Amino acid sequence: MTCVRVLTGIKPSGTPHLGNYVGAIRPTVRASRQAGVDSYLFLADYHALISTHDPARVQRSTLEIAATWIACGLDPQRVTFYRQSDIPEIPELTWLLACVCGKGLLNRAHAYKAAVDKNLADGRDADDGITMGLFMYPVLMAADILMFNAHRVPVGRDQIQHIEMARDLAASFNHLYGEHFTLPEAVIDEQVATLPGLDGRKMSKSYDNVIPLFAPREQLRRLIMGIVTDSRAPGEPKETEGSALFQIYQAFATADETAALARDFAAGIAWAEAKERLFERIDREIAPMRATYDELMAHPERVEAYLRAGAAKARAQASPFMARLRHAVGLRPLDTQPAPTSAGAASAAKPAAPVFKQYREADGRFYFKLTDAKGHVLLQSQGFANGREAGQAVARLKAQGWAACLDLHALVHALVPNHEIEAALQRLRET
Amino acid sequence: MTCVRVLTGIKPSGTPHLGNYVGAIRPTVRASRQAGVDSYLFLADYHALISTHDPARVQRSTLEIAATWIACGLDPQRVTFYRQSDIPEIPELTWLLACVCGKGLLNRAHAYKAAVDKNLADGRDADDGITMGLFMYPVLMAADILMFNAHRVPVGRDQIQHIEMARDLAASFNHLYGEHFTLPEAVIDEQVATLPGLDGRKMSKSYDNVIPLFAPREQLRRLIMGIVTDSRAPGEPKETEGSALFQIYQAFATADETAALARDFAAGIAWAEAKERLFERIDREIAPMRATYDELMAHPERVEAYLRAGAAKARAQASPFMARLRHAVGLRPLDTQPAPTSAGAASAAKPAAPVFKQYREADGRFYFKLTDAKGHVLLQSQGFANGREAGQAVARLKAQGWAACLDLHALVHALVPNHEIEAALQRLRET
Repeated sequence: MTCVRVLTGIKPSGTPHLGNYVGAIRPTVRASRQAGVDSYLFLADYHALISTHDPARVQRSTLEIAATWIACGLDPQRVTFYRQSDIPEIPELTWLLACVCGKGLLNRAHAYKAAVDKNLADGRDADDGITMGLFMYPVLMAADILMFNAHRVPVGRDQIQHIEMARDLAASFNHLYGEHFTLPEAVIDEQVATLPGLDGRKMSKSYDNVIPLFAPREQLRRLIMGIVTDSRAPGEPKETEGSALFQIYQAFATADETAALARDFAAGIAWAEAKERLFERIDREIAPMRATYDELMAHPERVEAYLRAGAAKARAQASPFMARLRHAVGLRPLDTQPAPTSAGAASAAKPAAPVFKQYREADGRFYFKLTDAKGHVLLQSQGFANGREAGQAVARLKAQGWAACLDLHALVHALVPNHEIEAALQRLRET
Repeated sequence: MTCVRVLTGIKPSGTPHLGNYVGAIRPTVRASRQAGVDSYLFLADYHALISTHDPARVQRSTLEIAATWIACGLDPQRVTFYRQSDIPEIPELTWLLACVCGKGLLNRAHAYKAAVDKNLADGRDADDGITMGLFMYPVLMAADILMFNAHRVPVGRDQIQHIEMARDLAASFNHLYGEHFTLPEAVIDEQVATLPGLDGRKMSKSYDNVIPLFAPREQLRRLIMGIVTDSRAPGEPKETEGSALFQIYQAFATADETAALARDFAAGIAWAEAKERLFERIDREIAPMRATYDELMAHPERVEAYLRAGAAKARAQASPFMARLRHAVGLRPLDTQPAPTSAGAASAAKPAAPVFKQYREADGRFYFKLTDAKGHVLLQSQGFANGREAGQAVARLKAQGWAACLDLHALVHALVPNHEIEAALQRLRET
């Protein structure tokens, strides 16, 4: 049976809350138990170094997050569950990919651009406070994904571009060195369950309205009692619509239980009683996990052992694959005979037709790119306000070639030398 | 005695010529033999990937350059002579440094700025054709230098800025995480010997006027006969000033030999005779090296063995150092107690000592294992025929570290990453 390889990275930062549990942890753990799925789940601690320089916090968060996932039912026997920094092949692959990554690609990364925009708006230098860790992050993420040839990467909308970049890097590498990487696909769950927080807004650390996932039972109770409600008295019918309390309940209860609470709302249940019911319902699901979590936190060596076993499993794949990639780029034992034709021959074979792709991104703007037959990106446009403008630019490039469209050079970036673009457009005209 | 650590990186590209020999190889090899100098010399093959995507060429150049240096008298027993890509700690350190490196620092790198200026002058996008490998290169170079806490890095003027950057990154890291890195100093040889080429201009590949260092004797002779001279006939006095022939002779001959040739110039030596003398003088120095070179090129496995031994020596330092740096930034085993204060002090905290256990099993053979203070097995041996052999292996591991005992790797299994084993052996040595 062929398995779909699904890879998820978790940045170890902060203490998980109920919103993380409902929106990410629970669905991911469930998905990892599906037949035909080969799950890779890792703690992105190299990534954590970008945003924190507090070593004790990195260590503590890694422990907390690892213990949380295991407590929430992640099966380390089944899932390849590892710590990014236990895989030395990851930073090595990051370097190999950096050598096929146009700097222009990273200039256009949303996260980087947002940081630059903020700096400029605040009257600071464009790159003020931006580290190379932040700038390079998409390359590290590509290495995470490509190292295991993941087919699917479940991400939020804000991460789609990073998956596109991983695809671009994979295609560039494959183009230069032969077919080594699977092109990953972003999987967007359009209906991510979000949970309201204590104040009714989305539960989020930045709103300071969270309920920690493994708050001790009494603290959990106190927090739930503090959820905002309207001022309707006991006996008055209550609205389920817009009730944070009701929505949280729904995220934990069965359909029958939810329907029962809706009836009680209509019948005028007192808020205090409703909160008590919510608390008991949540605690019923969380309590056994909390016990496991507390046990693991008291025995970090057990979590460490899980992660080491996971790293061994991951490296059993990563090491031989890295050996293959090293050979492909020329980092070879000197007494190895060079391959008769070598990887490059793949690209020499026959250039099939290049192709223009038009698409819309999360920012609502219209883009296009020109890729060659291997998926190697040759041209990448900036965002156009509407699809017609983008389409016209494509038509002109097709008809007139790259050099003749000088006015487009501010809007369209070349990722390869000009003569390669002209050759590709020429081939397009011929086919 | 305190040694000055001097580090030199060599990019494996192209075939070395006499100019490289006189200007770089010969003085570096001599310097490496000085007392009080601890030389590190490495083949920068990760670096080569920035400028070439031809795997066979990377492999071939690495072999040629390594064979050249050994043939020119580099003593691999004395110098730590290794291939950059054999040290996985290098790309890992590159990532740690990227996380403390402001992007603005790299924006100001001369090499990057020159590439941008050229693009703009040619009417192209600023970052056209510039890869992240090129942009990130100063961070990789900083990792090369800081990994071995080099005191001095001999470089050309164009590389001074890179050493400054390595100092900046070292200082930033030290500031955030405690004193780990030595601040390296650039050493500029103000009087680098340059050699004229066949046409009298500086010998350089870009002028196509080079004499390959290991050209076969007859080819060397033909090339030298082609050096430009003026048209003075035999018997006419010749000028030494401005004579390429004389300058090249001077770079190889003793003071006495040089003075003798000057007298012969004045006395009207024929150009053909002068060239013959130059040829014989160069060949006297080069011929034994050429023989060694040809021998090594015919036996790449010998060069490979030198480089592997060098890598083991380098990693015996790099692995425990990387373990210390990982601890400093927070990439720690989860069951390690966080240091009471911050990272700087951390390395002082010193966890309890690991221990070697030797024992005999039912099969009658002798075994040992290395466990950490918590009882985790770090190393596990296969059975030895007698206790003495097992004991000797333990003694060597204790004294030399894990990376330096490459021949034991077939008999002893690592159950954790190499850097953890090195760290444990390091602790053992300290206690």
